[in-house]
Amino acid sequence: MISLTNVYHCVAATVPLYATMFLAFISIRFWKLFTPDQCAGINKFVAKFSIPLLSFQVISSTNPYKMNLRLVLADFAQKILAILIVGGVAKFRSGGGLRWIITGVSLSTLPNTLILGIPLLRAMYGDEAASLIAQIVCLQSILWYNLLLFLFELNATKTASVTPSSEATGVTATTEEDETKDGGDELKLRNGRKYETLLIFLKVGKNLLRNPNTYATVMGVIWASIHFRWGVEMPAIVSSSILILSEGGLGMAMFSLGLFMASQTRIVACGARLAAVAMAAKFIAGPGLMAISSFAIGLRETLLKVAIVQVTYHLVIVTLIFWRIVPRPTD
Amino acid sequence: MISLTNVYHCVAATVPLYATMFLAFISIRFWKLFTPDQCAGINKFVAKFSIPLLSFQVISSTNPYKMNLRLVLADFAQKILAILIVGGVAKFRSGGGLRWIITGVSLSTLPNTLILGIPLLRAMYGDEAASLIAQIVCLQSILWYNLLLFLFELNATKTASVTPSSEATGVTATTEEDETKDGGDELKLRNGRKYETLLIFLKVGKNLLRNPNTYATVMGVIWASIHFRWGVEMPAIVSSSILILSEGGLGMAMFSLGLFMASQTRIVACGARLAAVAMAAKFIAGPGLMAISSFAIGLRETLLKVAIVQVTYHLVIVTLIFWRIVPRPTD
Repeated sequence: MISLTNVYHCVAATVPLYATMFLAFISIRFWKLFTPDQCAGINKFVAKFSIPLLSFQVISSTNPYKMNLRLVLADFAQKILAILIVGGVAKFRSGGGLRWIITGVSLSTLPNTLILGIPLLRAMYGDEAASLIAQIVCLQSILWYNLLLFLFELNATKTASVTPSSEATGVTATTEEDETKDGGDELKLRNGRKYETLLIFLKVGKNLLRNPNTYATVMGVIWASIHFRWGVEMPAIVSSSILILSEGGLGMAMFSLGLFMASQTRIVACGARLAAVAMAAKFIAGPGLMAISSFAIGLRETLLKVAIVQVTYHLVIVTLIFWRIVPRPTD
Repeated sequence: MISLTNVYHCVAATVPLYATMFLAFISIRFWKLFTPDQCAGINKFVAKFSIPLLSFQVISSTNPYKMNLRLVLADFAQKILAILIVGGVAKFRSGGGLRWIITGVSLSTLPNTLILGIPLLRAMYGDEAASLIAQIVCLQSILWYNLLLFLFELNATKTASVTPSSEATGVTATTEEDETKDGGDELKLRNGRKYETLLIFLKVGKNLLRNPNTYATVMGVIWASIHFRWGVEMPAIVSSSILILSEGGLGMAMFSLGLFMASQTRIVACGARLAAVAMAAKFIAGPGLMAISSFAIGLRETLLKVAIVQVTYHLVIVTLIFWRIVPRPTD
């Protein structure tokens, strides 16, 4: 099924990424090379320049007129399935509601395709597979991340309007008591909800406009549409200007991840039980859902194999991390 | 002599580098994106990881058994000529002595080959020219930078022992007055000098051991000697682990340079007169000396052309900077 060569390619493609992360980790924990503020500088560079430029590069070189419809459908099916299942579990367990859905769906259906997925698939199955995953990256950037961002803001607004209810709503209730009561209540409630939804949309929009990734995505889609329709090439100067920073984006992103890990006092911040649930979502539910969706849509070969290799591989890495081969800071 | 195509290639190869520098510059001056401490983090990352890994990559892929002897000789001749001329001028003008030699020689004979030279020459004359410049990078890393570092420390020690002489030497003179005077003085002086030289060597050695570039250079030379003698290949995992950070090294280095420029209150910190002298050293004396050395040794075509294009090109950039197209910070 999966040959040893495949496993080797998979290891060869991802070890450099983890090595970079590890380098960042030891440069903080052992060498004390960067102060927290200096780390923030590197992270900001990655978030504002490396990742957006890398996104642009991937999206702008994906042909929007030749999307693999089956793959897109399978991707859709996986996300919808995940939302339904996680939503059901959240309703049943009545823990955090929306917060659980956001975490569950992002853990199980949004793997780090941009950073890990593309090099991994290219190494294992060549450029064609990488172009398939690039399509998934596009969908993630354009659709799913924004949907999650919306849910996140919705949750933040709901939490804000629920938590301090004992004080705030009490006041508005008394001041509004002398208003007309017959039938107006329902209308007011409906108007209030409309207003709330509008506010959330505005907030999400504002966040999107502040995020360089939004511009990278939009410009990537625009350029891809022009390039693949009329065959217009980007001037060499422009493309090299983008490439000079995006090329290092992968390494910088992993380095930034390592800095983040090292900055936490505990590697597993949420406790062992929650970590186990998260890992189950990421390594079992996620690939499982993708496998089911792929089977249902009729995609088989490549994606299924990748899912299995990725699971095996990530489990090894996670086991290593759990064995605590690295010491914690003394403070 | 120099075709328009050559000029275009030259522009196309260097604009991305300057664009990256400019991006860093405006991210500080206009967007106030990074605090000084955050900039220090990025600069440290570049100095400790990007540049050493880039150096290693260049040095380890240069065949030490196939050095171009003429080129090496021309490079040597240029440096020796520069040291003689700058030394002569420094003696004649009796300004800063050693300090002038260090600045003059590095300005006129040590262009930024690693960052600007390799992409420029590859764009203009292909991979063969890039391998020629890589040999010069090797010599710079192994020999010339260390020589300059030695001179720098020598100057620092001399300055330290000259400046506070009015106080310090006065004391030692009186305490040593009752010691034997006949002939012992000269011996003591000679021993003192020996001791001083030893101290400087120790200090330079310590600095070198603290510099990641030293390790990158040494390991690069060792690996190149092994690889090109016995044809041993580096395991793909190791070479990709290096590549993942070194690949972005060029962009990061230029970004770091831009951060540095933006952090200065004035772009030309030393005043117009000194800047003019520095530019004359860099853009006229340097290429001129190289042209003379190349002619003398018998190298003609490629290097001569590059020298001229580089001069023209850098002059345009410098003129733009002098026109102050960018505002200064208000503080």
